[in-house]
Amino acid sequence: MRINSSRRALTMLADVCMSVTLAGVLPVFGQPSILIRNATIIDGAGGPPIVDGAIAISGSKIAQVGPAAGVQTPAGAREIDAAGKFVIPGLMDANVHLVLNMTIEFHARYEDRYEDLIEEAAQVALRNGVTTVFDTWGPLGPLMNVRDRINRGEVAGSRMFVAGNIVGLSGPLGPDFNQHAATAASQAFVKRINQLYEENTGPDLLWRAPEQVRAEVRKYIARGVDFLKYAAAGHGRGRSSFLMFSPETQRAIVEECHRAGIVAQTHAMTVESLRQGIEAGADMGQHVELTGPEPMPDGLIKLMLARKFHAAVQPFTARRRNMMIEDASDPEEARQITVSQENIVRLIKSGVPLLLASDGGLRNPDEIAFQKPRAGIDRPFELREGPFLWLQAMSESGMAPMAAIQAATRNVAAAYRKLDTLGTIEKGKTADLVVLDADPLQDINNVRKIALVIKDGRIVDRDALPLKKVLTAPRPQPRPASENGR
Amino acid sequence: MRINSSRRALTMLADVCMSVTLAGVLPVFGQPSILIRNATIIDGAGGPPIVDGAIAISGSKIAQVGPAAGVQTPAGAREIDAAGKFVIPGLMDANVHLVLNMTIEFHARYEDRYEDLIEEAAQVALRNGVTTVFDTWGPLGPLMNVRDRINRGEVAGSRMFVAGNIVGLSGPLGPDFNQHAATAASQAFVKRINQLYEENTGPDLLWRAPEQVRAEVRKYIARGVDFLKYAAAGHGRGRSSFLMFSPETQRAIVEECHRAGIVAQTHAMTVESLRQGIEAGADMGQHVELTGPEPMPDGLIKLMLARKFHAAVQPFTARRRNMMIEDASDPEEARQITVSQENIVRLIKSGVPLLLASDGGLRNPDEIAFQKPRAGIDRPFELREGPFLWLQAMSESGMAPMAAIQAATRNVAAAYRKLDTLGTIEKGKTADLVVLDADPLQDINNVRKIALVIKDGRIVDRDALPLKKVLTAPRPQPRPASENGR
Amino acid sequence: MRINSSRRALTMLADVCMSVTLAGVLPVFGQPSILIRNATIIDGAGGPPIVDGAIAISGSKIAQVGPAAGVQTPAGAREIDAAGKFVIPGLMDANVHLVLNMTIEFHARYEDRYEDLIEEAAQVALRNGVTTVFDTWGPLGPLMNVRDRINRGEVAGSRMFVAGNIVGLSGPLGPDFNQHAATAASQAFVKRINQLYEENTGPDLLWRAPEQVRAEVRKYIARGVDFLKYAAAGHGRGRSSFLMFSPETQRAIVEECHRAGIVAQTHAMTVESLRQGIEAGADMGQHVELTGPEPMPDGLIKLMLARKFHAAVQPFTARRRNMMIEDASDPEEARQITVSQENIVRLIKSGVPLLLASDGGLRNPDEIAFQKPRAGIDRPFELREGPFLWLQAMSESGMAPMAAIQAATRNVAAAYRKLDTLGTIEKGKTADLVVLDADPLQDINNVRKIALVIKDGRIVDRDALPLKKVLTAPRPQPRPASENGR
Amino acid sequence: MRINSSRRALTMLADVCMSVTLAGVLPVFGQPSILIRNATIIDGAGGPPIVDGAIAISGSKIAQVGPAAGVQTPAGAREIDAAGKFVIPGLMDANVHLVLNMTIEFHARYEDRYEDLIEEAAQVALRNGVTTVFDTWGPLGPLMNVRDRINRGEVAGSRMFVAGNIVGLSGPLGPDFNQHAATAASQAFVKRINQLYEENTGPDLLWRAPEQVRAEVRKYIARGVDFLKYAAAGHGRGRSSFLMFSPETQRAIVEECHRAGIVAQTHAMTVESLRQGIEAGADMGQHVELTGPEPMPDGLIKLMLARKFHAAVQPFTARRRNMMIEDASDPEEARQITVSQENIVRLIKSGVPLLLASDGGLRNPDEIAFQKPRAGIDRPFELREGPFLWLQAMSESGMAPMAAIQAATRNVAAAYRKLDTLGTIEKGKTADLVVLDADPLQDINNVRKIALVIKDGRIVDRDALPLKKVLTAPRPQPRPASENGR
Repeated sequence: MRINSSRRALTMLADVCMSVTLAGVLPVFGQPSILIRNATIIDGAGGPPIVDGAIAISGSKIAQVGPAAGVQTPAGAREIDAAGKFVIPGLMDANVHLVLNMTIEFHARYEDRYEDLIEEAAQVALRNGVTTVFDTWGPLGPLMNVRDRINRGEVAGSRMFVAGNIVGLSGPLGPDFNQHAATAASQAFVKRINQLYEENTGPDLLWRAPEQVRAEVRKYIARGVDFLKYAAAGHGRGRSSFLMFSPETQRAIVEECHRAGIVAQTHAMTVESLRQGIEAGADMGQHVELTGPEPMPDGLIKLMLARKFHAAVQPFTARRRNMMIEDASDPEEARQITVSQENIVRLIKSGVPLLLASDGGLRNPDEIAFQKPRAGIDRPFELREGPFLWLQAMSESGMAPMAAIQAATRNVAAAYRKLDTLGTIEKGKTADLVVLDADPLQDINNVRKIALVIKDGRIVDRDALPLKKVLTAPRPQPRPASENGR
Repeated sequence: MRINSSRRALTMLADVCMSVTLAGVLPVFGQPSILIRNATIIDGAGGPPIVDGAIAISGSKIAQVGPAAGVQTPAGAREIDAAGKFVIPGLMDANVHLVLNMTIEFHARYEDRYEDLIEEAAQVALRNGVTTVFDTWGPLGPLMNVRDRINRGEVAGSRMFVAGNIVGLSGPLGPDFNQHAATAASQAFVKRINQLYEENTGPDLLWRAPEQVRAEVRKYIARGVDFLKYAAAGHGRGRSSFLMFSPETQRAIVEECHRAGIVAQTHAMTVESLRQGIEAGADMGQHVELTGPEPMPDGLIKLMLARKFHAAVQPFTARRRNMMIEDASDPEEARQITVSQENIVRLIKSGVPLLLASDGGLRNPDEIAFQKPRAGIDRPFELREGPFLWLQAMSESGMAPMAAIQAATRNVAAAYRKLDTLGTIEKGKTADLVVLDADPLQDINNVRKIALVIKDGRIVDRDALPLKKVLTAPRPQPRPASENGR
Repeated sequence: MRINSSRRALTMLADVCMSVTLAGVLPVFGQPSILIRNATIIDGAGGPPIVDGAIAISGSKIAQVGPAAGVQTPAGAREIDAAGKFVIPGLMDANVHLVLNMTIEFHARYEDRYEDLIEEAAQVALRNGVTTVFDTWGPLGPLMNVRDRINRGEVAGSRMFVAGNIVGLSGPLGPDFNQHAATAASQAFVKRINQLYEENTGPDLLWRAPEQVRAEVRKYIARGVDFLKYAAAGHGRGRSSFLMFSPETQRAIVEECHRAGIVAQTHAMTVESLRQGIEAGADMGQHVELTGPEPMPDGLIKLMLARKFHAAVQPFTARRRNMMIEDASDPEEARQITVSQENIVRLIKSGVPLLLASDGGLRNPDEIAFQKPRAGIDRPFELREGPFLWLQAMSESGMAPMAAIQAATRNVAAAYRKLDTLGTIEKGKTADLVVLDADPLQDINNVRKIALVIKDGRIVDRDALPLKKVLTAPRPQPRPASENGR
Repeated sequence: MRINSSRRALTMLADVCMSVTLAGVLPVFGQPSILIRNATIIDGAGGPPIVDGAIAISGSKIAQVGPAAGVQTPAGAREIDAAGKFVIPGLMDANVHLVLNMTIEFHARYEDRYEDLIEEAAQVALRNGVTTVFDTWGPLGPLMNVRDRINRGEVAGSRMFVAGNIVGLSGPLGPDFNQHAATAASQAFVKRINQLYEENTGPDLLWRAPEQVRAEVRKYIARGVDFLKYAAAGHGRGRSSFLMFSPETQRAIVEECHRAGIVAQTHAMTVESLRQGIEAGADMGQHVELTGPEPMPDGLIKLMLARKFHAAVQPFTARRRNMMIEDASDPEEARQITVSQENIVRLIKSGVPLLLASDGGLRNPDEIAFQKPRAGIDRPFELREGPFLWLQAMSESGMAPMAAIQAATRNVAAAYRKLDTLGTIEKGKTADLVVLDADPLQDINNVRKIALVIKDGRIVDRDALPLKKVLTAPRPQPRPASENGR
């Protein structure tokens, strides 16, 4: 069986196969093997692209990769002629929130349907070439259930690794995320939702001594998290805390992670909280570029390098950054945006391993409906656009395309200690691939031109995703007032 | 077939019949007729009770009523021996809200399930002997759908008459009911919910001239409302308006109602708004006892009598009133409670026809969960307790039991112009009855001791109601903090 | 003694006289009489200007006016050669607030100094050619004290007529003006300030029947108000009320005014509140152009004409109106601005007598300090700029200069029934004049070019005003953050 | 000259002397020396009382103290027969706020009069026997001005030592103290007031690295503070921060204090913030008993002992504590009150040197006017009552009277390193004394029975204090509504 390389043909194939497919995943009949031929392969390891390369996939693994000549066609393999196309590793997003919302109405409406939302979001990510996501804040129980369902192949979706709560912060209707909920919703509801998120790792821990926190973190890890995120800082001035846990407590948290063999990551918002997190031994940090109005000291960058700290950053495209500065309510706010961008530029030059991190989720369509339209403004905190905008923004900030691809693949795998199976196109690794119609090394925005996504060695039926539309199915909007009798 | 009069036996009957019943209604085999014997009948017309009376029901109508000797047993009738029991007309509540809630979380959660809520509430009312309810504020579309379903016999429930919106007021998430929603929920959602309630009769009308309002009201009546309620006043100081529509506009609204053959009722909160409503020709008013800190002038009571105005009132039991005064935030608030009670006492003596009006609905269990428990405090704005507490409070305020029963039956039917078919136990009328285990003329609280409810000539399977529990099924509550690791 | 007509010379005169003057008023030595010669006189009566005219002033009255030839020089008169200049009656502002502020900080700071503020504001008005102001909302006691002091000649200032509270509305820290005060300031303070404004005419009256309100209004008039303003409407949707008092109550209020020989004016914000006010017999209305999103019906304009109702309006210049529409938070708000402007254009054409009404006061300099600078945007609600912007905005809207001058002089006097002594340059009237350097009939903005102001027959020492700077003395501003160690 | 010991006579003396006195201080004619005879002396050093003791004062110093027999009468000394009386050292309050208020209205009203307020407060303290106060948060400039004026003897008042801002926290209208001000007052005003407090040590410092903070603290110390207070924690959950500065920054702050020879104190609210402060080398801490819902670990108490840390605490009397628990909004809040009290009991037993710290100031009378009266409830945060209530509460908690007196005198002097001149009645020390009518060792509440206060060797004219009443002169209250025409 031979598959023409044109995008249209691939889509047709998808259509044909739909009738016999497991939802969202194209079936592989007989011997589940694939051969991709004639492609330019950017394997994520950082070396020059393999021109006229081939990838042999057997089951869920990469059996062989290299110049076409040296790659054997697995018996009974489906062959994909990828002439003129480019293959990169499946994208990995180091920071997503598959349930991303802190409004009363959202949680009231979906309280009994979190798993539906999580599936939908994981499928939207997969459709866009993100084969692995790391959920860094969400309701642990529902997240683990969907994670396991995807892993067992029962449902399509991006591969999920989940952290549950940010240790030390409240749930979505608590003071760290929603100031209105305490007065505008019933307390039973607010407590129930917050508890679903916080379990035993909410703000109560901040009152306690290091060993007490250690004991709770140990219990929480045993619940089944894949990695742990803790709040070295809260959400900044006016919200909560510049520092949350003492260095001793942070060390206890990190030790518990390492004892359990999982990665510890830190939520930092200030120079000192970031420094403390690194010194406590955290493996990686989120939005490290956020240091308020103070530029990141050189010493802090050196410290990251010395500790092999992985840094997830959240850049903005120039056009959005300019809009934000224009809309800033005061000069202080504008200054913080500028400082963050300067930090990013310095980090790119520094050699600190950077990670794609969109902080993205699916938005409540009701909220989107009433946002003021602003021509051409992109939404970085969206699962759909976020990863692509990240690559664009980093490119604008001086990151080379090859480095950007690595930040979106290999570096994420390394940071989360998954490099043995994920992050690059190498023999023996899991077959997560994205086939592009145009060269991402010429223009990083070509990553948007996805021809084909393969996850776990299977072709993803992108057009079918998400299978069950919840947030992506827009709600009916109110009729214009003109129909109301005027 | 003969039915023993003991309560237990009646319940057994219900149990037996359950297997073959339409949900919530006991079936009538063969000739659908019933004979109630040996009862004391309080027919609602105001005369002395008929001791040792009998009621013959044929189909949905009362075939005969009077001293047992003169009442013939319909052929094949099921006979109910009601020795020692008391029969009153089915209760009628002049003011309910089958969807009663103005919180963001409530509408977010149930936006797609209003009809389920309405059915549940109508069934709770019926279970408690309220065979007819008048819904004076709610989402018109869903209300009409359930109303029609009940009328067609497709589902059990209290007989519903519905008004939809209070003309001139906002929906539940608008400024008249919820001050938080504008900032704490998305605007698309808020507008959509408000529009469902307001249709073309929201606050926009307040800007307009009388003829413009008339045109909109005419359209709204044509939508299928059973009666109309309009805001002569808003919700009082600090909320909205002391007066809403000019006298000319009020007359236009009332004229449109009468042109369409429906009752016009007014929502008043102040002396002047009540006076204006009566002078505009409104047939009845809600919570007329509310006149703020100013006692109702004598002239106003005389005006009600002269215009044959029907007055729905909302009394509090002494224990609740005392609690409210104790909890009042300032002397002004306490004074208003006292003034309202004095108004009620004067109205009882005045001869103005008064109506049972609970303003009741089903509460969101999350809200109830966190209310401070206060021993012995009753909840008048509840469908379950409201009508009984109304009778108790009026009795405490000096209303004779017979007058109270009429206020809960005949007067409501008269006010809403349904006296031809409802409101009393008279030949030819609809067979809506409540059988009590104890004499309500001895103690009005005996109305709580319901042995049997008959609606439309059928015995209600009270234990089965509500059929589908939504609000009456308590939500899981958050675990106590002690389980959170302390 | 002869006075050169140049502005500089007049100023010099002022300087010379300062040493011997009563503050703010140039002294008149010996015979207190003035002759203005060679002027073009626009007398406010509406006829063609008197070219080469003269005005003889004896004491505080106009002794003669007309072509120079026919005007005799009073014995010992100071002669003013006004060649090339234009004389108009002293400006009259039908709506000012000499204490204009609803913030906590303002009332806390100035609670013991209201009279100083009132003097300052009355002097700012006088400096700008406004010789008479009508204060339509403010603290009655302090206002009357300053009014009387000015009338007795003890202090300089615009002639004041005062109404005190707007009957039915709260004080400045109550719900009609400041939603924050109830939670953000101490209750003792809030109540004390509100009571100073409300006395016995606050929102409590809204609960009462017509005769009760009548009794309170009668008492309030006896306090010494010069005219009365009552709230036919509150401050519009979301704030308070569309209608406040019933027609019967409004008639009682107006009757009490007329019984006491004072003018009744209505605060209206909607079509129906305006109509009710006119029908109740009110002599004049404020901001009548405000009818929300509904254009003023033709019938309402006809009603104003039939009742000889005087209409104060508050137009915006085109540039400010455009800015407001651009900044509007939703289409409804923008629509209201457009509707108001259309109402004004129609009123100008209608023949309804219109009145200059700035609604102006002096602003708290702290508030001004932090407003976003928007190039060229004028501030209509300021005593300094307000009257001039009113004239400009009305001219843009189609009002002829002569009509505009009458709206700012004669019409105001007529509306307030002061035409016997004020409003025009006629023999026997009070000598209130403004001498201009350029022709206002050529360009109404020439009213800004003031050469001289005469009030009560005395030349005003404009440069000395205000005598004691309180709000016009800017407070020290915080140092820039750069000095804080960054 | 001999002075009778009766209280009345002392008062008479004061009266007599008033005519020739410097305000607030009784004059000393000729040789400024005093001899107190026949007293029981509790010298603060902890030894047994000296019965029948005498104190000789020369100028501002104690010349001799001991059994009467051994004390020589200074030449020309005024003799005071203190038979039956008890002498203790002048009281010292380790935590006051001479400007104590965070409301908009307070700062708006008194912005130009802070120094008047500070004088008044210092005089209220002195009147009550508190001869020395340590102001731990206030506007530095005005505080230093008054401090210096008192020290130069230009005005009466308690001896002041001042810290200015709490390093890291906002001013009174910023987020750490007033959540309303940002929206309810003008920004220019808010920024100006905050800046007056913050100078270069506000929340901006939290963004910075240790060495940057060190530089700002050094500058601030050079401004002239007497000691420094910094925020190890903010104001707790829901307000701001559990931790504010990193340990490195805290060490830098403390080092700068010690380099400049001043005491460093820490504002802690949690177990970890307190521990960090002690480990950073802070000399003392405020309200150390506050550890939220978590009891203070034993290790923390041991650490205080090891580091010779001085602990200021804020106990409540049992009756107030019970009221607070009853009024608590949730069990968490009640638990925190209980935990704090348990901490205090343990601290008393531990041997950690404890300090009287009222956290007191003068209240805005408007705020007091509307507080619900609650019979017998004391106000600890008041300069008038605070120190006495502290002694009472500690006594209830198990502290012996002698220890309590030392906590109110010697310990405070020791903590602030003033023991060379203050804190005990010893030869050579400053003559600050309080003469009591009853024995404080019998009942610590006898400290309230003040017969005489001597500061700097001069008798204080207590009845004359405060000299200029501002906050202690109650404002006029609003008339009762009953006078408003009802």
